[in-house]
Amino acid sequence: MANIGFIGLGIMGKPMVKHLLQSNHTVYLQTRSGVPDDLVTCGGIVCKTPFELAQNVEILITMLPDSPDVETVLFGANGVAEGLRTDTLYPQLRRTIIDMSTISPIKTREFATRINELGHDYVDAPVSGGDIGAHNAALTIMVGADEIVFERIKPILELMGKQVTLIGSNGAGQICKMANQIIVALTIEAVGEALLFVSKSGADPEKVREALMGGFAGSRVLEIHGERMINRHFDPGFKIALQQKDLDIVLACASSLGLALPNTATALELYNACIAHGGSKWDNSAIVTMLEKLANHEIKKKTT
Amino acid sequence: MANIGFIGLGIMGKPMVKHLLQSNHTVYLQTRSGVPDDLVTCGGIVCKTPFELAQNVEILITMLPDSPDVETVLFGANGVAEGLRTDTLYPQLRRTIIDMSTISPIKTREFATRINELGHDYVDAPVSGGDIGAHNAALTIMVGADEIVFERIKPILELMGKQVTLIGSNGAGQICKMANQIIVALTIEAVGEALLFVSKSGADPEKVREALMGGFAGSRVLEIHGERMINRHFDPGFKIALQQKDLDIVLACASSLGLALPNTATALELYNACIAHGGSKWDNSAIVTMLEKLANHEIKKKTT
Repeated sequence: MANIGFIGLGIMGKPMVKHLLQSNHTVYLQTRSGVPDDLVTCGGIVCKTPFELAQNVEILITMLPDSPDVETVLFGANGVAEGLRTDTLYPQLRRTIIDMSTISPIKTREFATRINELGHDYVDAPVSGGDIGAHNAALTIMVGADEIVFERIKPILELMGKQVTLIGSNGAGQICKMANQIIVALTIEAVGEALLFVSKSGADPEKVREALMGGFAGSRVLEIHGERMINRHFDPGFKIALQQKDLDIVLACASSLGLALPNTATALELYNACIAHGGSKWDNSAIVTMLEKLANHEIKKKTT
Repeated sequence: MANIGFIGLGIMGKPMVKHLLQSNHTVYLQTRSGVPDDLVTCGGIVCKTPFELAQNVEILITMLPDSPDVETVLFGANGVAEGLRTDTLYPQLRRTIIDMSTISPIKTREFATRINELGHDYVDAPVSGGDIGAHNAALTIMVGADEIVFERIKPILELMGKQVTLIGSNGAGQICKMANQIIVALTIEAVGEALLFVSKSGADPEKVREALMGGFAGSRVLEIHGERMINRHFDPGFKIALQQKDLDIVLACASSLGLALPNTATALELYNACIAHGGSKWDNSAIVTMLEKLANHEIKKKTT
């Protein structure tokens, strides 16, 4: 049984913590906006700062919006690093910091180096599966870590996820998540271009979607996001603000690597345009609405 | 039992004709480069011109490379239309022309109108599934036709395909095929951008591909084309020359419709670049090699 700390109790973090509270571990919690009462009722122990939490746990999990948030919690004032450095009770205890946020792979490697220099282990373990996956402990978890560290913390991750895969050393988990985000966003954009072509050509996008489902063009994106485009429901799902943030990270990394990703760049432009139209909370399938603006045509079903 | 004519005995047409020859129908054959002996041995009756073939059959199938080829066969000198117009034996017999080539939806509608004006029916029925699908009578066939005409010729199409779907009126079959080509090409390009990002970031593309297969980024394209990119085998498959032709058709149609398809346009540019590098016969997954040129980096497996 371990003392586990968890920082970040948002739409993802809260349901993930509930699974930890149902295990035999002792769970310490910290969040900027105050720990929800129901988590305390279930046994969560509240800490005032990341500093305080770091001194109480062996395994410390962060689940935060973006790279700067993780940086502040880890290395800012009253942060985790300060807590680890000044710990007098168990100064020799090697802790494991697990960042489950989706953040920059480059920043991740930097954070890992800094934590290692303090004598502790770092794991990047971003997830996919959304809040439903978090509620059902069915997240896909992509891990960047040393193999020995991975084996040690895998049972903890398995309390929250179904498919927990070691991709490689630090940063590899985030790189895998970024690859996921590239493919998902570009496949959604592709389905958007295709269905808009169909509709503007005067054919029925619904029949085409059905006909293509079984073949090489078939995918869960065609099934789910294609259906959203045809039936015009753009409530999330996965919010455009988050999709934009992730593609921003991808292109910043790509730029620093000297890597041109032309279609990812276009997709980000279209998501930026969505936000200009007030769409930060739309589902990411609403990227099609910006293609529709350019075409002066909206996808519609044929009623025959 | 019907007299069926078939024009175009290439890599697709030949195996398709074999299935017709195994049925109880009488099959007339015509092709520019001479009918292969084995098709004659199996009962195929050779005609010298599309004109001659048109006068002998009730159902006439074309399987040709591109719109101009279909136009020449149908409306050129010694063509199908001339044969139908001057037929003295059965001048009242309503024939059905089935074009199974992948050609322009706009040209298709024009051809259909011209055939209708001669008193005959037109069907566009492009296929997907490649030469393997043709050999196994397992093609997906996307049909644009009047419903009554479709029901009449469906059993003929089912001799060659497994999934035969009426999408809509004339042109809708080709529009559906174009939607298929957009999605397939852009998903391949997306997988290329993602795996290149992974490799250039220093992670293992093979592990990432495996980890993503089960989730929202999963597709047959990630499975098959992703594997080709990682293991560097770009023998076709589906040739870049054909993929380029199809995206050319898409963008010409889109342009005439006032429709911007930004990522399809980029994919076509990358396929053009492949051809500039001698890649017209490479598999369409080799689009990634042009992204690699820009990045000055080739995808490679990590040997750990």
